[in-house]
Amino acid sequence: MFHFWTISQESFDPRHLHHIETIFTIGNGYLSTRGAFEEGYPGDRRATFVHGVFDATPVAFTELANAPDWLPLTVLLNGERFGLDRGTIESFQRQLDLRTGMLTRTIRWHSPSGYIATLIFERFASLADPHTLFLRCRVMPEFEGTLEFRAALNGNTDNDGGGYRLTHWRWAGQGARGHAMYLRNRTHHSNIEFAGAMRLTPIAGRELSREVWDVENTPTLVVKMEAMSGQEVIVDKFIAAFTSRDVEAEHVVDAAVERVQGITGWSAAFDAHAQAWREEWARTDVIVEGDDEAQLAIRFNLYHMLIAAPRHDDRVNIGAKTLSGFGYRGHSFWDTEIFMLPLFTHTAPHIARNLLNYRYRHLPAAHAKAKANGWEGALFAWESADTGEEVTPTWLPDPNNKTRLVRIWTGDLAIHISADVAYAAYQYWQMTGDDPWFVEKGSELILDTAKFWASRAEWNAQQGRYEYNNVLGPDEYHDRVNNNEYTNRLAQWNLQTALKTLDWLRRHAPAKATELIERLDLNETRLAKWLDVIDKIWLHTEPNGLIEQFEGYFQLKDVNLADYEPRTRSMQEIFGVEGANEYQAIKQPDVLMLLCLLRDHYTAEIMRINYDYYTPRTDHTYGSSLGPSITAIMSCEVGKPDDAYEHFIRAGRADLHDVRGNARDGIHGASAGGTWQAIAFGFGGLRITPEGWSIHPRLPRHWKRLAFKFFYRGELQIVDIKV
Amino acid sequence: MFHFWTISQESFDPRHLHHIETIFTIGNGYLSTRGAFEEGYPGDRRATFVHGVFDATPVAFTELANAPDWLPLTVLLNGERFGLDRGTIESFQRQLDLRTGMLTRTIRWHSPSGYIATLIFERFASLADPHTLFLRCRVMPEFEGTLEFRAALNGNTDNDGGGYRLTHWRWAGQGARGHAMYLRNRTHHSNIEFAGAMRLTPIAGRELSREVWDVENTPTLVVKMEAMSGQEVIVDKFIAAFTSRDVEAEHVVDAAVERVQGITGWSAAFDAHAQAWREEWARTDVIVEGDDEAQLAIRFNLYHMLIAAPRHDDRVNIGAKTLSGFGYRGHSFWDTEIFMLPLFTHTAPHIARNLLNYRYRHLPAAHAKAKANGWEGALFAWESADTGEEVTPTWLPDPNNKTRLVRIWTGDLAIHISADVAYAAYQYWQMTGDDPWFVEKGSELILDTAKFWASRAEWNAQQGRYEYNNVLGPDEYHDRVNNNEYTNRLAQWNLQTALKTLDWLRRHAPAKATELIERLDLNETRLAKWLDVIDKIWLHTEPNGLIEQFEGYFQLKDVNLADYEPRTRSMQEIFGVEGANEYQAIKQPDVLMLLCLLRDHYTAEIMRINYDYYTPRTDHTYGSSLGPSITAIMSCEVGKPDDAYEHFIRAGRADLHDVRGNARDGIHGASAGGTWQAIAFGFGGLRITPEGWSIHPRLPRHWKRLAFKFFYRGELQIVDIKV
Repeated sequence: MFHFWTISQESFDPRHLHHIETIFTIGNGYLSTRGAFEEGYPGDRRATFVHGVFDATPVAFTELANAPDWLPLTVLLNGERFGLDRGTIESFQRQLDLRTGMLTRTIRWHSPSGYIATLIFERFASLADPHTLFLRCRVMPEFEGTLEFRAALNGNTDNDGGGYRLTHWRWAGQGARGHAMYLRNRTHHSNIEFAGAMRLTPIAGRELSREVWDVENTPTLVVKMEAMSGQEVIVDKFIAAFTSRDVEAEHVVDAAVERVQGITGWSAAFDAHAQAWREEWARTDVIVEGDDEAQLAIRFNLYHMLIAAPRHDDRVNIGAKTLSGFGYRGHSFWDTEIFMLPLFTHTAPHIARNLLNYRYRHLPAAHAKAKANGWEGALFAWESADTGEEVTPTWLPDPNNKTRLVRIWTGDLAIHISADVAYAAYQYWQMTGDDPWFVEKGSELILDTAKFWASRAEWNAQQGRYEYNNVLGPDEYHDRVNNNEYTNRLAQWNLQTALKTLDWLRRHAPAKATELIERLDLNETRLAKWLDVIDKIWLHTEPNGLIEQFEGYFQLKDVNLADYEPRTRSMQEIFGVEGANEYQAIKQPDVLMLLCLLRDHYTAEIMRINYDYYTPRTDHTYGSSLGPSITAIMSCEVGKPDDAYEHFIRAGRADLHDVRGNARDGIHGASAGGTWQAIAFGFGGLRITPEGWSIHPRLPRHWKRLAFKFFYRGELQIVDIKV
Repeated sequence: MFHFWTISQESFDPRHLHHIETIFTIGNGYLSTRGAFEEGYPGDRRATFVHGVFDATPVAFTELANAPDWLPLTVLLNGERFGLDRGTIESFQRQLDLRTGMLTRTIRWHSPSGYIATLIFERFASLADPHTLFLRCRVMPEFEGTLEFRAALNGNTDNDGGGYRLTHWRWAGQGARGHAMYLRNRTHHSNIEFAGAMRLTPIAGRELSREVWDVENTPTLVVKMEAMSGQEVIVDKFIAAFTSRDVEAEHVVDAAVERVQGITGWSAAFDAHAQAWREEWARTDVIVEGDDEAQLAIRFNLYHMLIAAPRHDDRVNIGAKTLSGFGYRGHSFWDTEIFMLPLFTHTAPHIARNLLNYRYRHLPAAHAKAKANGWEGALFAWESADTGEEVTPTWLPDPNNKTRLVRIWTGDLAIHISADVAYAAYQYWQMTGDDPWFVEKGSELILDTAKFWASRAEWNAQQGRYEYNNVLGPDEYHDRVNNNEYTNRLAQWNLQTALKTLDWLRRHAPAKATELIERLDLNETRLAKWLDVIDKIWLHTEPNGLIEQFEGYFQLKDVNLADYEPRTRSMQEIFGVEGANEYQAIKQPDVLMLLCLLRDHYTAEIMRINYDYYTPRTDHTYGSSLGPSITAIMSCEVGKPDDAYEHFIRAGRADLHDVRGNARDGIHGASAGGTWQAIAFGFGGLRITPEGWSIHPRLPRHWKRLAFKFFYRGELQIVDIKV
């Protein structure tokens, strides 16, 4: 079974450098580090991202700052520097052990002058103590002479954004204390301090000399070892990292130095780390038998969710590209609540709560956004970073003409985000039964978003109905549409759930009810308006059971996507941004997304009718990476598990196989989170009912077994389906 | 007289750090280095700019890349690092010797632990061999122990732009050869290679040890010296720099290493350098007696022109902020041709020719810009960098609201640049009599711009006249105006001069005439059109002799600027961008600019009438830095040399006193160049006539003597006015 825990690379091809860096990202929920090489490689995209460490950037307002680099470790064989861009690579192997997040690289290399050695690099970011990072280098020389190891902390990092490279850090000091060296940096705009401290320790072999190279912004420890043919030399580089988000700014250096000095050794640290990982997998693992690829893919996706999940911090969210790349600059979208959060709600409620608290903290920013647009209540930012303010770019340079701009509408129009947050909060409460949290925070999230929806509704006197016009639904091929069914129905659900919530609060937490009624001004007139909107919101199902994605969608030109196969571009690229608006081709499930979220509210017949209509009109291959997992669930719902498998495996492969060609920018977090939903809600058919939970297995024909776990009201539940 | 050659700073105040860095920039026409400290200072804006080394940047398309830093030299007193942000500064003095471009800093400093020393840093960028740079550190310790010197080349530089910091260089190698270390870097987008090589040599004192710190992108040479109280220790850091603009990319390292190894020592290098400076000043110096401030100010401005002037390269231009700061990103404007070039045309024709050749090289880009707008001939870029393409930003983020943009119109509408270039080419020819150049290049510049003007003219059938509508004249408080007199009259001048040029070519270089007629398609129809435009171009002088700046200007609200005094903001800031369009207040001379350039074409009466009208309506203090020197000339023309002095000294002080608060962004090149014009054309009254030249002195009352030099037809002329 070992095989299904290991992602392997058997040869080195620099053409896939950035993709592989993403795949081999390690992390611990505090920070993540892309799988770049210790010694560097020309054009690499080395990056470490620390949750919440944002700094200002042009156009996109703010971005996760690529942190000072803890990886550098160069090795010299008799003075010749090891690197994959020189000498001869005789063999190369790289492995990521998903069970422990241990990344290992083994190279047999000939230096340009002919010195031969086998080098093994191992690294992990401790899950037991997320401020500590471990790197080991083992060298088996086949020559006599010297091996030199140079370990650095490098503050000269930059961010890759739109082809330009921005620096976020200024040097703020460095020095040596005992065996440790430290480096301190500060972000240019947000003034966040970062301190790294390192030690470099020979473990095997004879030490010849040591030096400290106190170069500004790149403090370096150098140790020279004797090389004897056939005798392994081992050195360990230990790092500790703290930011002023963790401790007071004046203590970041002390904290890092003390922590690195307290490390007792590789084995002890690894044991604690591996134990922490065992506990994670004990809750999270999914077993698939009969399909090795699916087994490995689901674990790979779960691994990337687990390393990105903030366990100890409720001021941060997970970016659309997790912490594994520069894509979307670390900004968070509805991807969190609708695609990633269900995994945590079901398998790690403490993480789900942290993520929901992040939204709760940003209610003031959500009020400000609603107010700036003339509405009430909480309108969350479509793209959100450290403050909760809207950080969607309003315009981007036109890639085809640098003097022109393209207007980006999502930040203005994708208002469904508010209902998505409310939905996630309610789902968390239903699964966990975490009443204290719901009283303190969750209820307010639901009531405050409901307040927004009631104020945002436009009364159409002629038609006698409420409308949400000029919006952007889940399907981004159609912008500035009216009465998107997903938006309207979730707004209605949000208002209905708010009334239920208020009723529940009045009965179970009357003081809180009184406080919220007072603070949110939930007077009778307002609540009457809520009922009126619930009653008269525009919703439209054709007599044949077909739901119209938005007003006028059925009047658009129909399209047979098969006519465009084979293709390597999205339908939007083929039709153009304006052209895509004229066709029924959609980027991702929209009506089906609604049916998936509210699957208890729709009949099997409605699901089938809409599945049959919308699925062939969806750009599964080059549309949104958010689509396949949802389509997999819906395929199961309509009794087509083998179709579901095609969509599921497309999601599972998204990053491993780089099927969209952009895995270099980071892991597709929504796709990764969605694979778990496809497992549990799709193939497992997990449903929550007032009485508890039930499963309705519908496995692909070739699967022999599916097992997964989840917490229900605090108790771990185990599902094990064998066929 | 020594005093009038020295810019001194007698104490250190970090609040003026960036301003002083600009003032103390050294350079040699190949590169310039801001006056940052060798050891660094928190928040400093250290920068070296090499002519022509541009790299892509967002919004502004391209910018001069802050080159790898050759300055770093840190000194440790018994292990304690010297820096002005720690310990105690007992005395501080800094001097820039304008005669030689030698920058000297003397500090008596107490380390935190109480070690005392006097440190003297000297630096110069050789004018004799512009690829070599020299730095000397002299330390007089008052303690026993060690002095450690760490000299680095640092490739981790960034560009300061709009509050963000962009990197332009990637590491491309480093190493040691003999006593020298080298560093090689490459720009991200333009792929220009830069190699620096350095040596660190003890000159006085006893050497204890040496180390090489081979840290990636910051190679460092370290030498430890014995410290004995009262015994001076001296070390020299020599640097050589080459780019792939100078030699083939594969030879940049060899070139830098060989050059640095060939340096024979400080004294020999300085002697050659000082001799080169003597030759510069022998042509350029201006003597003012009776006014010490004016004497020093004019030399200061001439110094900054001389260090920015490209002596050996005709592929580059001088940026609006010379090579001394990040302002305007190294882009060149009409500032070169109209404000700076006359100095070189008169005192260093070989430099003027280089600058004009830069425009000649960019005729293809000027054709492309005209063609893209539907016109013919050569329309030069308003902002120009390495390719001659338009690099004016089309939009900039609104500083008051980051989600909004401000449209920048100059790149579209400030078409007078084409006539400005033609004017400068003609002036160069008139002064130098450089017929070979005029035949080969200058004539084409004039004919090709004339072709543009004829195609750009709009026929108004109703009025029976040609018009230039929707333009931006010199005064930028009024954009999108019609029939700006400056633009229309210079267009007419350009067409007239083109016909004269063609006539001259037919007589003196008939083969070239034939070639150009053929190549530029100067057929009879086209030339007839030129005559027609010259004849019927909209030009407007009121019966009272007043020229209207543009059509409708006199209908704008009048304004008494005195009513707004005292003020610290421009009138545009007070009125707002749109508001300023409604008033007669102007940013800088526009009609007077025209009268200044074509002063032989207007009567004294017309000058006086327009001077009296426009001068009080000009924002002399916070409008354009281009204005004061021109107003000084015109004040002299109307017989008011004491008024002229006020304007002249405002220009002279612009950067020395940081009167506009933005000297941190670099030297105001147009203002610096304009001070020489105010001297020669204003106070000296220099005029070129068909018979030769004449002067008409009109000195400020307190001046006792004014002397300046210029070349006329290859012969150095000396003007020495004593009163």
